[in-house]
Formats: sequence, structure tokens, C-alpha cells
Amino acid sequence: MKDNNCIFCKIIAGEIPAAKVYEDDKMLVFRDIEPKAKVHLLAVPKSHFKLLSEADGEIMSYMFGRIPQIAAQNGCDGGYRLVINQGDDAGQTVFHLHIHILGGEKLPIDII
Amino acid sequence: MKDNNCIFCKIIAGEIPAAKVYEDDKMLVFRDIEPKAKVHLLAVPKSHFKLLSEADGEIMSYMFGRIPQIAAQNGCDGGYRLVINQGDDAGQTVFHLHIHILGGEKLPIDII
Repeated sequence: MKDNNCIFCKIIAGEIPAAKVYEDDKMLVFRDIEPKAKVHLLAVPKSHFKLLSEADGEIMSYMFGRIPQIAAQNGCDGGYRLVINQGDDAGQTVFHLHIHILGGEKLPIDII
Repeated sequence: MKDNNCIFCKIIAGEIPAAKVYEDDKMLVFRDIEPKAKVHLLAVPKSHFKLLSEADGEIMSYMFGRIPQIAAQNGCDGGYRLVINQGDDAGQTVFHLHIHILGGEKLPIDII
């Protein structure tokens, strides 16, 4: 479940500090340390999945079921953008599945 | 299930043409008519959900379970970016839940 070389696994384990905004037994949401918008959160499953293709449907359903409320409670009540980068072409840097939650302001219309 | 004023519901119903790349009984994937990347697909549930907060977990799990293979089969084998815009701050224009699938080239690193 835990990859000892993964920075997000270390955050989940409490070995690296993070500004957590939501946590339960299946997922963790914390602030991106290099925010690209007024609000920039990262939602991660506690289990280590490198890619979307490895994640089971249950965890995706679980996370997407909770994200709208978590976003609204953290300053994204005017809307938000979710971004999932997969692989090299998308510039994925941490290979632990994560969902960017961006908002708190009018975002650029261009999505890339 | 169908909103008669919704352009994506009309595409699903075959009333408006679209370049479909994948279809089953629950979801449809077609090319964005204003592509922002070499490959730019839109994945939509056949049921009309305005927002993520209205969608049930089953459809999210279903779509995310199939997207990796659909992306790979449509030129995104080097990776891809998924984007979901929710509400005004994100510039959501069509209020039928849709997942942008972007790839086919190196995407800009900045996610917004």
C-alpha cells in the first residue's frame, strides 16, 4: 500500500508535513506547496496507485463523491477546476495518483 | 435523463453530429470541436448531470475505469491530462458533466 520512495505516501504517513484540509481513512486533501491559483488543493487516495489505470473504481467514486463538498468548504464555492495529469506528456511529476483542485478566483478559460 | 436544451444531450441523442471515438450504454466520448491539444476528447455520461455533485459514484467509477484505455487508443499513449470544470470560476460553459481528455503531445507544464 505504501511506497517508501513516494513523497505523497510520506505525507500520508505523517513523515513529511503538509497543510491538510481533509482526511479520512481512504483519502487525504492538502494544500499544494506551489499553488497555481488562490486555492490549490491536492486530493490523494491513501493507497499508492501510480496511475489512474491502477486505481480501483471504488476509490475514484469515493473521492469524486467528496470533492464537491471539500472544494466548497475551502473557498471554491464559486466553482473549481479538477486536473489529473497522467504520464510524461502531461508533466506528471509525482507518481501517486492525485487530483488537483483549483479555484477561489476566476480561472483562465484556456484549460491548457 | 435528457435535458432538451443541452447540447451534449443532443449529441448523445444523435440530433447534433459529433466525431465519436467511443460509445457504450453509459458514456460517450467525442472530439472537442475546438481542440486545445493535438488530441482533445470529451467524455460525457449519457445521463444528464449538470455538476459533479449531482453525479452518482457509479458513473464516475465507470468513466474513470475506461478513460485510460480510451485515451491510449486515441493517440494519448504518452500520457494525458484530464480536466473537469465546475461552475463559473472554472469557466464551465456546458452544464452537462464532461471530462476533457488532452494529449497527443507534450502539454504545457502549467496546469492553469
